[in-house]
Amino acid sequence: MPRFFVAASNIFGGVAYMDGKDAEHLKVLRVKKGEEIIICDGQGKDYICRVTEVGGGSAEAEIVETTVSAGEPSVSCRVYAAYPKGDKAETIIQKSVELGATEIIFFPSERCVSKPDTSSVAKKLERWNKISREAAMQSQRGSIPAVRAVGSYNEAVSEAAEADLPLFLYEGKCKIGLLDAMKNNDGFKTVSVVTGSEGGFSPEEVEKAEAVGLICASMGPRILRCETAPLCAVSAIMLYSGNL
Amino acid sequence: MPRFFVAASNIFGGVAYMDGKDAEHLKVLRVKKGEEIIICDGQGKDYICRVTEVGGGSAEAEIVETTVSAGEPSVSCRVYAAYPKGDKAETIIQKSVELGATEIIFFPSERCVSKPDTSSVAKKLERWNKISREAAMQSQRGSIPAVRAVGSYNEAVSEAAEADLPLFLYEGKCKIGLLDAMKNNDGFKTVSVVTGSEGGFSPEEVEKAEAVGLICASMGPRILRCETAPLCAVSAIMLYSGNL
Repeated sequence: MPRFFVAASNIFGGVAYMDGKDAEHLKVLRVKKGEEIIICDGQGKDYICRVTEVGGGSAEAEIVETTVSAGEPSVSCRVYAAYPKGDKAETIIQKSVELGATEIIFFPSERCVSKPDTSSVAKKLERWNKISREAAMQSQRGSIPAVRAVGSYNEAVSEAAEADLPLFLYEGKCKIGLLDAMKNNDGFKTVSVVTGSEGGFSPEEVEKAEAVGLICASMGPRILRCETAPLCAVSAIMLYSGNL
Repeated sequence: MPRFFVAASNIFGGVAYMDGKDAEHLKVLRVKKGEEIIICDGQGKDYICRVTEVGGGSAEAEIVETTVSAGEPSVSCRVYAAYPKGDKAETIIQKSVELGATEIIFFPSERCVSKPDTSSVAKKLERWNKISREAAMQSQRGSIPAVRAVGSYNEAVSEAAEADLPLFLYEGKCKIGLLDAMKNNDGFKTVSVVTGSEGGFSPEEVEKAEAVGLICASMGPRILRCETAPLCAVSAIMLYSGNL
């Protein structure tokens, strides 16, 4: 059954109202009056609907059944990534969303080669949130993970530290591996995964991260690329928390 | 310390002999006589060496210390991927090598859009093995995972079935998830991960896989892209087997 995201504000009185790109998408897929589709409100609810009106740039569908979206994992996992080079940010977003991340946050760090300015970040975020939406649709998520940016390294690590399991993934000497870090915090419901750019983190940044309470954890002796590290971590977290 | 792969046959009598691209690479990195480098024989051994000769397209280095390469995981994980579209094969190879796979094997399946013929496969394999070598160097692996192709779906699944934990990753209805499949086969030393192309597997292919002994396992309710599924699985396997 084809699946669409429709803003929760457009679902009321037992009917889902689609316009703009959503109605366009329905047309592209040649969905006709009377057919059943799944509409997700992006907030964890799925509606099985029967299309009652379609055409003229809008569409309506009556709700037949309401269920909880199956695609949402039981833990909330935020990915904090230092700005990478080229189009690696897009890879991080697309794959993190597929794998079950809740939010993706970019931040500048000392060794970032690319530190976009405010106006360029705004443009990028528009594009990045589109990639998240597409990945959420494709992977049948029940919500669309937000992509946002924070202005400083300090802000990123302070925010990340609030999670039950605040991970700082670092290829240098760490006292603990990812598996043990999870075991030591069993039952966690929220996780942060902080990862570096191509050049990694400076010793001062590692110190700061530990000072605000992040757990410096390694992912084994293999050196992962900056776009691979978050994907490996999210996969590992989903396995450990029973979501795979 | 810079790290190079040198064929085991070029390491003897306490000396490592480098020529061709390896010597070239040494030159590019401006490594000079007297400097220390790490030479890996690609078979799990690392040699800390002191460069004694460099220039004229060749180089020599005397062995100072011999160690086991730290980058090799304790389990052997083979990735069997149905030919994907475009350059996704390269993504699968690069990331699988980083994450610790032992070998990457491509095979044709019913729903593959791209099924390269023999001569085109030969060309691709040359390029793909180069990508594996580069990824192995970058991630500090102790061996260079081979990339190869098998000619048929049946061959792929029969071969894959030989592992202690022969996984067939499928987005359809599976009796078991990835985590439980691993728990049921605790202590596994060899794993196969069979994943499909964009179109997934046909019901007949699923049947065949189960008939030869593969374990049909799901990776949760989220639908992963064909290049994401093997990376998620290898990450999960490395976590579970204590390699993260």
